[in-house]
Amino acid sequence: MGEFETVKDQLKKRFHERGAWGLTTSINLKKCNPATIRDAEAIKKYVRELCDLIGMKRYGETVVVNFGEEERVSGFSMTQLIETSLISGHFANASNSVFIDVFSCKWFDPDVVEEFTRKFFEAENSNAKTVIRSEEWFEEAVEFKKGVSTALQVQKKLHSEKSKYQQIDVYETVAFGKMFSLDGVIMVTEADEFCYHEMISHPALCTHPNPRSVLIVGAGDGGVVREVLKHPEVEGIELCEIDEKVIEISKKFFPHVSKDLGNPKVKIVVQDAIEYIKEKHKEYDVIIVDSTDPVGPAEGLFKRDFFINCEKALKDEGILVTQAESFFYDPQFISGIFEKTRGIFPVMKYYYTMIPTYASGTIGFTFCSKKHDPEKDLHEERARKLQDLKYYSTGIHRAAFVMPVFTKKFFK
Amino acid sequence: MGEFETVKDQLKKRFHERGAWGLTTSINLKKCNPATIRDAEAIKKYVRELCDLIGMKRYGETVVVNFGEEERVSGFSMTQLIETSLISGHFANASNSVFIDVFSCKWFDPDVVEEFTRKFFEAENSNAKTVIRSEEWFEEAVEFKKGVSTALQVQKKLHSEKSKYQQIDVYETVAFGKMFSLDGVIMVTEADEFCYHEMISHPALCTHPNPRSVLIVGAGDGGVVREVLKHPEVEGIELCEIDEKVIEISKKFFPHVSKDLGNPKVKIVVQDAIEYIKEKHKEYDVIIVDSTDPVGPAEGLFKRDFFINCEKALKDEGILVTQAESFFYDPQFISGIFEKTRGIFPVMKYYYTMIPTYASGTIGFTFCSKKHDPEKDLHEERARKLQDLKYYSTGIHRAAFVMPVFTKKFFK
Repeated sequence: MGEFETVKDQLKKRFHERGAWGLTTSINLKKCNPATIRDAEAIKKYVRELCDLIGMKRYGETVVVNFGEEERVSGFSMTQLIETSLISGHFANASNSVFIDVFSCKWFDPDVVEEFTRKFFEAENSNAKTVIRSEEWFEEAVEFKKGVSTALQVQKKLHSEKSKYQQIDVYETVAFGKMFSLDGVIMVTEADEFCYHEMISHPALCTHPNPRSVLIVGAGDGGVVREVLKHPEVEGIELCEIDEKVIEISKKFFPHVSKDLGNPKVKIVVQDAIEYIKEKHKEYDVIIVDSTDPVGPAEGLFKRDFFINCEKALKDEGILVTQAESFFYDPQFISGIFEKTRGIFPVMKYYYTMIPTYASGTIGFTFCSKKHDPEKDLHEERARKLQDLKYYSTGIHRAAFVMPVFTKKFFK
Repeated sequence: MGEFETVKDQLKKRFHERGAWGLTTSINLKKCNPATIRDAEAIKKYVRELCDLIGMKRYGETVVVNFGEEERVSGFSMTQLIETSLISGHFANASNSVFIDVFSCKWFDPDVVEEFTRKFFEAENSNAKTVIRSEEWFEEAVEFKKGVSTALQVQKKLHSEKSKYQQIDVYETVAFGKMFSLDGVIMVTEADEFCYHEMISHPALCTHPNPRSVLIVGAGDGGVVREVLKHPEVEGIELCEIDEKVIEISKKFFPHVSKDLGNPKVKIVVQDAIEYIKEKHKEYDVIIVDSTDPVGPAEGLFKRDFFINCEKALKDEGILVTQAESFFYDPQFISGIFEKTRGIFPVMKYYYTMIPTYASGTIGFTFCSKKHDPEKDLHEERARKLQDLKYYSTGIHRAAFVMPVFTKKFFK
């Protein structure tokens, strides 16, 4: 065997280095021996042998009690105090499943516990999850593509509130600095927000020949405002954000993102953009829709009517850019957008940015234009003059419209 | 409040729809009221009130015992059987921390439990994690960038073994089909392997004017072999894989990836490539190094000596491509490669592919070439003739070498 670090080595190191208080291993066993899980003496024997195996000192008796009221949940429950905490178990007769938890302040080997437990109860299969008690992890809500999630280790939860529209949480993360989530979905992290904010802003502004008037929808954090203001041609920005709490939170926790919200060129409108846009006619050169995912408050921003109203609100050379999800996880959504908005804008394209904390590591945008083509009409000189960029360049502008082969069918 | 699905709604839906057996919420509280956590009667009161609040029927007495042997872990432990399982707690005097677990077969509201618990013990802060018992999730080992991980829901664990070199596990995942991991790190999933295998192979083969002889290092799964064989010019492939178990596993579980391992053009060598390459002199047109991460068995594949030996093993127009990690998570590693291999190859570049199950959603490659420049010498016509591609195209070839601005400093 090689002299390298295994997953368990890493866990053990984290446990010892970070002054963890304890360790919990939760084991699920399926299709166990029905006789064993119905035998209180066998369960007690399991506890004795397990404690001997991992060097835990039992404290008091093993408690084994039977619940029988409801068929679905009937079976034994077991608890055994140990000198460094607790071993507990639940034995589900209906499915012959076993659920064991070992919580200990003293290090033990989770693999040894799982293997012994699986063999003892003769389970057909098992899985185990071990967590270090005292470590906190944020796990992104599993929304579009059920079954995949990004987990970020958290140093501290800084803020939590329910606004009129959504659940807002702010965390200090280990790897990405401060992060805020809406309804459990990662929105902004200090470390990678530039990937998103530069790429939702500059392709449109560098394609439009003279962007003076810009409407930004959503984006109450201020990131898009900051990028748009890098273009000296821009004379006025309206920011239409439905949830003023997002603005507040960003001002308080994300000064580098929100720093230009007070710029005199910026007018903040706290309102539903779906209503706001209805009254606008040929007012803007560029509209940027920095929405959340197309569920909840942002749903209407992905409907045909909204695209029609944006077209009307744009001047004759106008450009609309909207957040449009990941081509890895949301192909049907993307196809849907392209189908249902057909014919509204003469030029309609899709482009992407890479961003590690967003699901799949990439997110895309629709580029809807009345006249100018982002792949032909890039204003190279203006783009090259932009300051303080960490992602966007003229090369990236062109590359971002080149799609992997499998995505081509989404954009018909 | 909007009529949308919150994280809790989603959890509740998963609980009910998927026939879960139970729910565990683990709460960590820090900086609690020192008097309360040292008061057995208060702890019993907490249990009574919590059970009333979430409608749980207590079964027997609340057990509260004190452990005092070791200062670090001294304090009360509590268990309370409930008719649908168990509430347990540990009270750590040294840090005034509290750890509560509620395991129940009946649905309860995890937020209500956390809030009540935090208030009862007057904790300065709390965090809680809720898992559905019976759901299994694979969490990628947290390796380079501590504090971030990808989690995939698993339907079934299909295989697990410790080879001479590494831990190999195979899972059926909900979102990505079959997946195999080495030492806890995701290697191949059925759904997105093409992003990696096409992009590690075709840029070199389409830049070389006449690739006939190819050495592949690692890649025992067969994915690179499958891609290289799409080039009719290739007459012979040597696959040098250190771990024959990887080949076995791929043949058994990933037929679409391994399907060409038996092709008569392919010679499989089970050996350490670091040794194998030392004896080679101007034998190959292209060498592709599809290694695991640069820890453990693959470490030597990232050393200057190995690059020197590859240069020697390549013919005069030869090209070497190596897996080279993510520019988001491994900037220092990438800088290191570029520094320590300076001067070996006249042309040295970096390019990337997007792949959702790899950390950060992207991974890069070094492109080391004796003569031909991938950005100037692409053989467009040959590239366009390639069949069965899902990612690579001539457009993607060019776009893949365009880097976000912040990465430029890594490649000096």
